[in-house]
Amino acid sequence: MAYQYGQGQGYQQPQGYNNPPARPPPPNPNQPNLSQIFQAVDKDRSGFINAQELQSALSNGTHIPFNEETIKLMISMFDSSRSGQINFENFQRLWAYINQWQQTFRGFDRDNSGFVDQNELAQAFQQFGYRFSQDFIGLLMRKFNRHNGKMAFDDFIQCCVAVQSLTSTFASKDSQRKGQITVGFEEFLSMIFSVRT
Amino acid sequence: MAYQYGQGQGYQQPQGYNNPPARPPPPNPNQPNLSQIFQAVDKDRSGFINAQELQSALSNGTHIPFNEETIKLMISMFDSSRSGQINFENFQRLWAYINQWQQTFRGFDRDNSGFVDQNELAQAFQQFGYRFSQDFIGLLMRKFNRHNGKMAFDDFIQCCVAVQSLTSTFASKDSQRKGQITVGFEEFLSMIFSVRT
Repeated sequence: MAYQYGQGQGYQQPQGYNNPPARPPPPNPNQPNLSQIFQAVDKDRSGFINAQELQSALSNGTHIPFNEETIKLMISMFDSSRSGQINFENFQRLWAYINQWQQTFRGFDRDNSGFVDQNELAQAFQQFGYRFSQDFIGLLMRKFNRHNGKMAFDDFIQCCVAVQSLTSTFASKDSQRKGQITVGFEEFLSMIFSVRT
Repeated sequence: MAYQYGQGQGYQQPQGYNNPPARPPPPNPNQPNLSQIFQAVDKDRSGFINAQELQSALSNGTHIPFNEETIKLMISMFDSSRSGQINFENFQRLWAYINQWQQTFRGFDRDNSGFVDQNELAQAFQQFGYRFSQDFIGLLMRKFNRHNGKMAFDDFIQCCVAVQSLTSTFASKDSQRKGQITVGFEEFLSMIFSVRT
C-alpha cells in the first residue's frame, strides 16, 4: 500500500509499491552486458550518448520513432554534467529507469497490445494513488498519445513523468494538504516553467 | 497604448500596439511570391507542408536548426484540419504570423545581434504589458534559450507564445482580476495540459 498523505485531494507524493519509478535508481551491477549495449548505442564512439543515439536505440514497439520529448526528459534527468549527453555511469541508471518503466507499463497493458487505452490509463493512475475524473484521463490521453487514441510505452512515460513533476510542484505549495492552492500570476507561471514536462 | 485590464496584477490579455502577434492574422494578398515559396518548401509536392519541411525552410540566424517546439506550436495553430500539415491557405496565415514575430523580435534586438539577452527580454515583456521580476525573466531565459544564455528568434517565439497561452488560461480563472487564483489539483493540471506550450 502506497503512503498517502492528505486523503481526499486526489493526489499524493509518488512513492511506494504501486507507484511509478520516481527517482533515479542506483546502478545495478547484475545487469547484463551494459557496457556492450552502451558501446553499441554510442555510434560515434564519443564515450557519451546523445539524444539522437538514445532515440535510435530505443523502441516503443511501433513503427514510429521513440518519443523525442521522453528522450529529452530522460536525458535531462540523468545528465549530471548538464551537457545534454550521458556517460556510462549515468547510462546504467537511465537503463535501469527505463526497465522499471517497462515493467510498470506491461503491468497496465492488460491485453498485451503494446498500448494502454483510456481505461488502462485510468487504472494506472488509480494504482499510483491519484483520483482523477474520466474527463481528465481523457485529456491526458489526447495530450500524450501519438497513436490514434492509444498510448505506447514512450508516451506513457512522458505522461506519467509530467503528472509526477506537477504533483510535486503542487504539493510544495499545498503545505496543509488541502488539495487546493492560491497562487499569483508570476508564481503560477514559475511553477510551470520550473518543471520538466 | 495597449489595453490593460486590472492594473497591478502584472499581466494583461495580449492585445494592442506593443503586443506580440496574438491571433492568426488574415492572409495578405500583397505578400510576394507566396505561392512560389510554398512550392519550394513543399519538397515532396504533397500540397501540404509538414513539420520537417517547415523546419528546413526557416532560419533563426544561427547554425542550429529552427526550434522544433516552435515549429510544432505554429503548425498546431494553423493546422485547421488537424492533420499535422499546412495547406496553402493556412501557409499564408502562418507566413504572415512569422513575419510579424520577426518584426517584433527585431524591435527588441536593439544591438542587432540576432539574439535578445536578458535585459532585452525584460524590456520586451514590459512592453507587452507584463510586470515580471528579474528572477522570473531569468527563469524564462534559462528555460527557453538554446544559445548560451541568449535567445534567438525561434526560442523567443516559443517563450512568448507559452507565456501568452498561460496568461489566457490564468485570466480565465481570475474573473475578478485579482492577479491571484485558487485552484484544485486536477484543475491545476488541466489548465496546464490544455494549453499549447
